[in-house]
Amino acid sequence: MVVTRKIALNSKGHCDLIDITRQVKEEVSASGIDSGTVTLFLAGSTAAISTIEFEPGLLSDFQAMWERNVPRNIPYQHDRAWGEGNGYSHVRSSLLGPSLVVPFTNKTLALGTWQQIVLVDFDNRPRSREIVLQIMGE
Amino acid sequence: MVVTRKIALNSKGHCDLIDITRQVKEEVSASGIDSGTVTLFLAGSTAAISTIEFEPGLLSDFQAMWERNVPRNIPYQHDRAWGEGNGYSHVRSSLLGPSLVVPFTNKTLALGTWQQIVLVDFDNRPRSREIVLQIMGE
Amino acid sequence: MVVTRKIALNSKGHCDLIDITRQVKEEVSASGIDSGTVTLFLAGSTAAISTIEFEPGLLSDFQAMWERNVPRNIPYQHDRAWGEGNGYSHVRSSLLGPSLVVPFTNKTLALGTWQQIVLVDFDNRPRSREIVLQIMGE
Repeated sequence: MVVTRKIALNSKGHCDLIDITRQVKEEVSASGIDSGTVTLFLAGSTAAISTIEFEPGLLSDFQAMWERNVPRNIPYQHDRAWGEGNGYSHVRSSLLGPSLVVPFTNKTLALGTWQQIVLVDFDNRPRSREIVLQIMGE
Repeated sequence: MVVTRKIALNSKGHCDLIDITRQVKEEVSASGIDSGTVTLFLAGSTAAISTIEFEPGLLSDFQAMWERNVPRNIPYQHDRAWGEGNGYSHVRSSLLGPSLVVPFTNKTLALGTWQQIVLVDFDNRPRSREIVLQIMGE
Repeated sequence: MVVTRKIALNSKGHCDLIDITRQVKEEVSASGIDSGTVTLFLAGSTAAISTIEFEPGLLSDFQAMWERNVPRNIPYQHDRAWGEGNGYSHVRSSLLGPSLVVPFTNKTLALGTWQQIVLVDFDNRPRSREIVLQIMGE
């Protein structure tokens, strides 16, 4: 069985982290599928999906890591060509990745107690985003 | 068809890498499913799953990369708030990711000859870990 | 339903990025499966799979990020033992990951307009590569 659902949301950009765990749980629970996997996919090249313990200190630590390793304020060839100033957003997104697969059993996701699913929006402006959920199983 | 299995193990923490390829192969082989995918998922926010050629030099190189890019000995906001000293473990885990999907055909995983599946435990102490295997296919 | 397909290609190595979106679309379209997921998997430990907006500036930016964060010209233990000089290729590959899962509905992949699927070959020489596509759904 395959059930396709979408989560739409608005981000602030600038490495905004948005906890989508509740919505994913609700969609899996309502899907009619008991056991399987939910594949989350972000259509776009300046945002990504991961998991994190969603507490303010860590969100700040995660953002600081991106500033150190893929800094905003160095030259990017993409920005020379396209002038949108978000070359760093693309590079971060390719490194973190647009896809996450989470198993579930008895309609319950295999997440840890302090592990939340997040959209990470690396773009340099507010964005409307849509995450596809492909729920598969039996 | 969906078969759920679990692999339990003990890690030393501190970027311990544990080769779980044999256990994954055994579970896939015993699942009764011929072709499909196995989704590995680590419940927790201070460890992750990836693949590597499992030889001592590379394990050391991989650990050194983490020290350079997400160092242990810089201030983390998470540690101020929670005092467990493992802020770096969380950030590394979010970057590497808790999930890996490996296809198999005729009960054989699509791994390269020198490609092993590993748990990477970034926490700063020994931990008991459980990895969920969702085996799906026909 | 499960359909297994393979994409064979030749890379130049040295962080060569190859756009495989067209081939993946064709295989999904020809699979006879309407909705589900395609799991891409790279058998090997010196290459990886991700998505990127495939334009020359960004390819160069992505390659520059790897040179900064996992440099070629620092000592690797792997190279001492094996002498192939590609220790950095292995470390990059483990960080980016060998696997990508993309949902599709009505035979259409859930990609963004400027989001392409790429093989990233980190090895230090030209390579023949094979990517497994596990197409699952109904």
